[in-house]
Amino acid sequence: MTPSLSPLDTCASTATLQSRVIAHCEADEGKAVERLCAILRIPSISTDPAYERDVRRAADWLAADLTTLGFTAEVCKTIGHPIVVAHHPGVGAAAKHAPRVLFYGHYDVQPADPLDLWTSPPFEPAIVNGPKGPRVVARGAVDDKGQVMSFLEALRGWHAIAGGPPVPVTVMLEGEEEAGSKSLEPFLHAAKDRLVGDVCIVSDTGMWDIDTPAITTRLRGLVYLECTIHGPSRDLHSGMYGGAVPNPIQVLADVVHSFHDADRRITVAGFYEGVEELSPQTRAQWESLGFSDAEFLGDIGLPCGFGEKGRSSLERTWSRPTLEVNGIFGGYTGKGAKTVIGAFATAKISCRLVGQQDPDRISAALKAHIIERLPAGCRAEFESHGANPAISVRESSPYLTLASKALEDVYGRKPLLIGTGGSIPAVGSIKQILGMDSLLIGFGLDDDCVHSPNEKFELRCFHNGTKCHAALLGELASLKQR
Amino acid sequence: MTPSLSPLDTCASTATLQSRVIAHCEADEGKAVERLCAILRIPSISTDPAYERDVRRAADWLAADLTTLGFTAEVCKTIGHPIVVAHHPGVGAAAKHAPRVLFYGHYDVQPADPLDLWTSPPFEPAIVNGPKGPRVVARGAVDDKGQVMSFLEALRGWHAIAGGPPVPVTVMLEGEEEAGSKSLEPFLHAAKDRLVGDVCIVSDTGMWDIDTPAITTRLRGLVYLECTIHGPSRDLHSGMYGGAVPNPIQVLADVVHSFHDADRRITVAGFYEGVEELSPQTRAQWESLGFSDAEFLGDIGLPCGFGEKGRSSLERTWSRPTLEVNGIFGGYTGKGAKTVIGAFATAKISCRLVGQQDPDRISAALKAHIIERLPAGCRAEFESHGANPAISVRESSPYLTLASKALEDVYGRKPLLIGTGGSIPAVGSIKQILGMDSLLIGFGLDDDCVHSPNEKFELRCFHNGTKCHAALLGELASLKQR
Repeated sequence: MTPSLSPLDTCASTATLQSRVIAHCEADEGKAVERLCAILRIPSISTDPAYERDVRRAADWLAADLTTLGFTAEVCKTIGHPIVVAHHPGVGAAAKHAPRVLFYGHYDVQPADPLDLWTSPPFEPAIVNGPKGPRVVARGAVDDKGQVMSFLEALRGWHAIAGGPPVPVTVMLEGEEEAGSKSLEPFLHAAKDRLVGDVCIVSDTGMWDIDTPAITTRLRGLVYLECTIHGPSRDLHSGMYGGAVPNPIQVLADVVHSFHDADRRITVAGFYEGVEELSPQTRAQWESLGFSDAEFLGDIGLPCGFGEKGRSSLERTWSRPTLEVNGIFGGYTGKGAKTVIGAFATAKISCRLVGQQDPDRISAALKAHIIERLPAGCRAEFESHGANPAISVRESSPYLTLASKALEDVYGRKPLLIGTGGSIPAVGSIKQILGMDSLLIGFGLDDDCVHSPNEKFELRCFHNGTKCHAALLGELASLKQR
Repeated sequence: MTPSLSPLDTCASTATLQSRVIAHCEADEGKAVERLCAILRIPSISTDPAYERDVRRAADWLAADLTTLGFTAEVCKTIGHPIVVAHHPGVGAAAKHAPRVLFYGHYDVQPADPLDLWTSPPFEPAIVNGPKGPRVVARGAVDDKGQVMSFLEALRGWHAIAGGPPVPVTVMLEGEEEAGSKSLEPFLHAAKDRLVGDVCIVSDTGMWDIDTPAITTRLRGLVYLECTIHGPSRDLHSGMYGGAVPNPIQVLADVVHSFHDADRRITVAGFYEGVEELSPQTRAQWESLGFSDAEFLGDIGLPCGFGEKGRSSLERTWSRPTLEVNGIFGGYTGKGAKTVIGAFATAKISCRLVGQQDPDRISAALKAHIIERLPAGCRAEFESHGANPAISVRESSPYLTLASKALEDVYGRKPLLIGTGGSIPAVGSIKQILGMDSLLIGFGLDDDCVHSPNEKFELRCFHNGTKCHAALLGELASLKQR
C-alpha cells in the first residue's frame, strides 16, 4: 500500500496528486473489497420493519467509516430510517474556490426473496469468478452499497495521499431509497443549511457495457400504489357461494386487465399528459448506440419484447411511461387446493413516469380508474409507497464535461449519454429543495440482477468506479466556481 | 345416563329400541361434545404435507373409537392419507334381511389460514354461546368432523342400548376429501369386496335452517386446476425492464379476465356442454322455498349478488356451473414496495360442474383456453387438484322416504329436498365403483363459516343430527332388502 504522506505533500499539483490517489486506490483494492463485504453483511432492508435495527446498524457503520476519512459524520434522525450526513472542508488551495460537491447514495437494500433462488445467502457476500472476472454476489452489491463504497474508496484515496479531498465534500446517504424515500424531502427542508453544494454526484446507475462508461441524463419517475379490493365480509366456501358473489381476485384481475388496451397503451384517463416524443436528434443518437434487443431480451430468456405497439425496447424503458403490477396476492396461496373465495385481493402497482407527467395526478387518476370498475359490494383501499416525477439532466452543464473527461481518463473512451428506466427520487428532491443539479455516474451492468436473486457487482466495475470518482474530484478542483 | 342393557333386551321391538336409543343419546350429550372436541383438537389438514402425522393421528383416534362401539376397525393404507374402514354385522333378527348401510365421512380438514381472523385458535375447540344457542368453534367443527361424530354418536347409542346397530353397518372415513380425494377411487377398487352395502349415508351437507331439515339431491362437480404462468427467466427490476417485457402477473390477469364475458358467462370453449335447464317442476319447487337473497347476501356483507346474468342466487349456486379463482400470487407479496417484475404468477382455479358436464373435457378446455392467450415468451404449467362430475340423487328411492320419516320424527316437520353448490367427490365414486346410491343428510347451516375462519357447528344441530341418524338406523331395519 502507498504510505500516507506528510501535510507538505498537499502542496503538490492537483494533477500529480490525482494520479497518486488513483495509484493508491489500485494498491488498496483488496482491502476495499473487504470493506465492501463488511457493509454487505448488514441486511438493511428498509421496506420490512423487521430489519429496522439492521438499517440503523448500516448507518452507524458508514458514519464510523467516514470519520476515519477525516469527515465530521452524523447519523441524523428522520421520521423514518436515519440519514448519514458527513462534511469535509477539502484540503489545498483550490478547495476555497472549487465547486462544493454533495455525494448522494443509499445504504438500504431491497428484500432478498425469493431466497431459494440465491446460489449463496444474500447477506453473506461471495466472491465468485464470472465471465467478466471476479464479482461480489450479495443483496445490495451494486444497488447501492457497492456504488456508495466506490466513492468512499475514492475519498479514502484522497485522504491517504493528500489528507482529504481537493474540494469541499458533503456525503449524504439515505436509508429509504428502496421504500419510496419518504423521509428525504422533510429532511432536506430541515437540513438545508448543512447541505450546501454546487453539484450533486449520484452513483446509482449503470454503464453501457463493462468497457464503456455512461452518464445517465434521463430518469423515469415513479408512482407506487398498493390497492386492496374488498368483497364479501369473510372468506367463503366457493361451492356454497361461487358464481353468486363478486370474487375480489377476479375483480382485481378485471381491473389489472383494464389498465392496458390491445396495443399495450395505458388506458388510465389523462395518463399520457406531459409525455413528450423524442427529438429527432435524441432518436438518432439512440439509434447509433447499437442496442441489441436480442441480447437485452435473450439474457432473461425471452424470444421477443412485449409492450407499447410501435416502440423499441429502448423507448419502452427510457422514454415511455409504464404501468406494472409488481405483486399480487389473494385467497389461498399455500400448497394444494382450498375451495375458498377470499374476502380481499391485493395488487402492488407501479407506474414509471417520463417528461412532465404529474405524479399526484397520475396517482389520483389510477385510483379513480380502479374505483369506477368495482361492482356493487366491493370497495378499494389504497396505500401509497411513493410518487416522484421524471428527471432530465442538462447536457450543457460544465460538470458533465468534467465528468466525461474523468471517465475517459480511466476507461480510455468517452462515456455515452444514456437514459434509464429506473427512478432515483432523490435527484428530483435535491434539485427542487437544494437547487442542485445532479451528475448520474454509475458502474452497474444490465446483468447485475438488481432487485433479483444473485445480485452482483463486477469487481472491475467497483474498482474502476473508485478511480473515476477519484479522478472526478481532481477535475472538479480545477474549476473556479466561487 | 341410561344403563347398558343385557343381551335379552335386543329382543325388544325395533321401534321401542329406537326411542330408547334416542333417549340415551340425549342423556349422553355432554360426553358427546367432549368426544367431538377431542377429535377437533387434531389438526388433520390434508393439503399440507406438514400435517401428515396429524392426519394419521386423527385416523387412529377414529378407528379406536369405532372399536369401542363393537366394530372391527382398521386404518387402511392408501397412496395418500389413510382411510378408516370399520364393520359391524348388526344385532337383532331384522339385521339379516335389512339393507346394509355404508356411512361415509371425512376426517381431514381445510387449512385454517388466515389465522389472525380466528377469535380462538382453530384447533382448540371453544364452546361459545351464539344467537342459536351454544356452538363449537374450530376448524372441522361442521366440515366434517362434527357430522362424522353425529353418526358415530348414533352408533354409540345403539351399542349402549341394543349391543349394536339394528342393520349391518360399514363405516368408511377418508382423509383426503379437502385435497381432491385422490386416493379414494383406487382404494374403492381395491377394497370393493369389503365395502358391500345397499345404501350409502353421507353427512357432509346442510339444513335449510336450524329448524328445517333437508336432504340434498343435487351436488355440483369440481375441476380444480393450479396454473403457473412463467415469463422472464428471473425476477427483473421493473425500472430497467418494465414496459418492454411480458409481466406474468398481468398476463395472468388478462387470462383470468378472459374467463367471463360481460354477462358473466364462462367463455371457455364447450364449457356449457351437458348443462341442463331446470325443469318447470324443479323451478316451481325452488321458488316455493322462500329463499331470501337479502339474508343469503346480507350475512356476508353484500348488498346484491354478482354472477351469470338472468339467474337467481339459488340457480347460480345449485344448478349453474362456475369458474372461480380461489387463490392468486406472484411477484413481491411482503410489506411495502418492491419494484420487481416477477418471473412467474400462479392462480388456483376451480370450476363447479352440473348436469352432464365432463370434468376431463372441461379441464382440457381450460388448459387450452389459457395456453392460447399467452404472449410469446410465456408458458403455462398446470397441476390438477381433482376432477369429478356432478351428482343427482334419485328422488324416488325408498331410502329417501325412510330418511324423510326419520328427520320428520326428530324435527316435527318434513325435510326439504335441496341442491348444494358444494362437491363431494366420494358420492360419484361410490355410485360408479360400488354401485351404491347415496343419501345426503347433513346438519350444517349457511352461516357455519365452512372453509373460513371461525368455522362452527351449532350443538343443537350436532345433537339433532345424532338423533336423526339413530332414528334412520331404526327405520332402515324395517325394510326387508334381502
